[in-house]
Amino acid sequence: MSTTRPVFYVSDGTGITAETVGHSLLTQFGGQRFHTSRIPFVDSVERAFEVAERIRAEGEARGVRPIVVNSSVNPEITAALGHSGALMLDVFEPFIAPLEAELGEQRQAKVGQAHGMVDFETYHRRINAMNFALAHDDGMSINYDQADVILVAVSRAGKTPTCIYLALHHGVAAANYPLTDEDLEHDRLPPRLRAHRSKLFGLTIDPVRLQQIRQERRPDSSYAKLETCKREVAAAEKLFRAERIPVLSTTHVSIEEISSKVMSTLGLQRVMY
Amino acid sequence: MSTTRPVFYVSDGTGITAETVGHSLLTQFGGQRFHTSRIPFVDSVERAFEVAERIRAEGEARGVRPIVVNSSVNPEITAALGHSGALMLDVFEPFIAPLEAELGEQRQAKVGQAHGMVDFETYHRRINAMNFALAHDDGMSINYDQADVILVAVSRAGKTPTCIYLALHHGVAAANYPLTDEDLEHDRLPPRLRAHRSKLFGLTIDPVRLQQIRQERRPDSSYAKLETCKREVAAAEKLFRAERIPVLSTTHVSIEEISSKVMSTLGLQRVMY
Repeated sequence: MSTTRPVFYVSDGTGITAETVGHSLLTQFGGQRFHTSRIPFVDSVERAFEVAERIRAEGEARGVRPIVVNSSVNPEITAALGHSGALMLDVFEPFIAPLEAELGEQRQAKVGQAHGMVDFETYHRRINAMNFALAHDDGMSINYDQADVILVAVSRAGKTPTCIYLALHHGVAAANYPLTDEDLEHDRLPPRLRAHRSKLFGLTIDPVRLQQIRQERRPDSSYAKLETCKREVAAAEKLFRAERIPVLSTTHVSIEEISSKVMSTLGLQRVMY
Repeated sequence: MSTTRPVFYVSDGTGITAETVGHSLLTQFGGQRFHTSRIPFVDSVERAFEVAERIRAEGEARGVRPIVVNSSVNPEITAALGHSGALMLDVFEPFIAPLEAELGEQRQAKVGQAHGMVDFETYHRRINAMNFALAHDDGMSINYDQADVILVAVSRAGKTPTCIYLALHHGVAAANYPLTDEDLEHDRLPPRLRAHRSKLFGLTIDPVRLQQIRQERRPDSSYAKLETCKREVAAAEKLFRAERIPVLSTTHVSIEEISSKVMSTLGLQRVMY
């Protein structure tokens, strides 16, 4: 195993773009150990020189050349960061010239546009979607008319985090419906859900994994018994088949992937924040 | 104004990386109109050819060359997408050769590693942080010992979305403390917060903006009066100064930026999910 290599996600904004790209790149090199740090809001040349010094020192301390994944849009800041001696990966630079040629326009290098201030309208939509998800998390006091999507599943199969991700990142009004024992016994959805068939998406999960999650939440309850989990999951999957609801197993899938699948299955096209 | 140009974020995984980079790039070209679509899970060459056909058709329909921001790691999929005739921007390609040279290792092009399955431990931490944020959103039944950060602000200044973002993206256990009238009258924090001084971060907001937000929530209440908002914000800012709590105005700042500032101010270094 090689030495641990320091990687810095540097930006004049939040650093989210640098970290997203950098993380994706690093996952393609499995034989390495990395120590990653995010350095956001490097918004002056002076600050960039300070940061370069810190990066250089870190590389010297670890005895290996650092890597900088840089999403600053100001070329002077990028140049100053180069004084660190790190391998510089500038996430925008390779694409600016082809885009300028294609679009017939010079880019405007304004700082922090990507994850910075948004207009009031957009911000509002996003916050309203999140408030909707939070208010409609119990499946009880719900007006499903306003929902863009209704996730249907047994308890602890991944509904809540997915709803919140959909709201926070895509402004999707996502509601939950936790399947009750009654639903599962009768193999049918309640009438108030059937009126919204086109918005329904089922989540399922491996019963053993569900048991682990429930056990952590309510140790040694009948709710957390493997038998209970197996019975509920089998009944839910039967119901999804009977009602022809699209379904995804969350067992080996991240929240991002579940959200993407839900949106592409239901044909929801939204911006990403 | 030019014609609206179709932009496609294409990936063999969720497409989050492609969309993040693409969005950042497009914001640097303000004189253009774009119509963006995300096409995730393009995980076979056959599917890539179908997608290329769709992209070509869209460009022909709009009479302008499409742009593809592509984060597929499989070169055959990328080649197939190239048949669309679009301007191809491959977000990883420029960085692979320098990284391979620096690391002395060939990249392994496994699909969907970046936003795909994570280990159970990591997933658990993330979900636990989110459950923590949801459970500690009212400022009432709180054990602040487990909190990494406590956001302090008047009602509707941005605490809840920030807490949830911090939990969902960084696994930070973020709690809220809504300032009460009593706190604001006495210019002091309650004793149970003073025990956690190093975790406190204050949010403030322009009173006019606060008034808009509250008005939407509870129209024509005394809570939503501009006078109330002005008084509460002024008292909160005075209290933050008196107690030397770091503070940020959320008025012109995105949730991502607030979260980044909170983390860098309090010295929290976490992975981004």
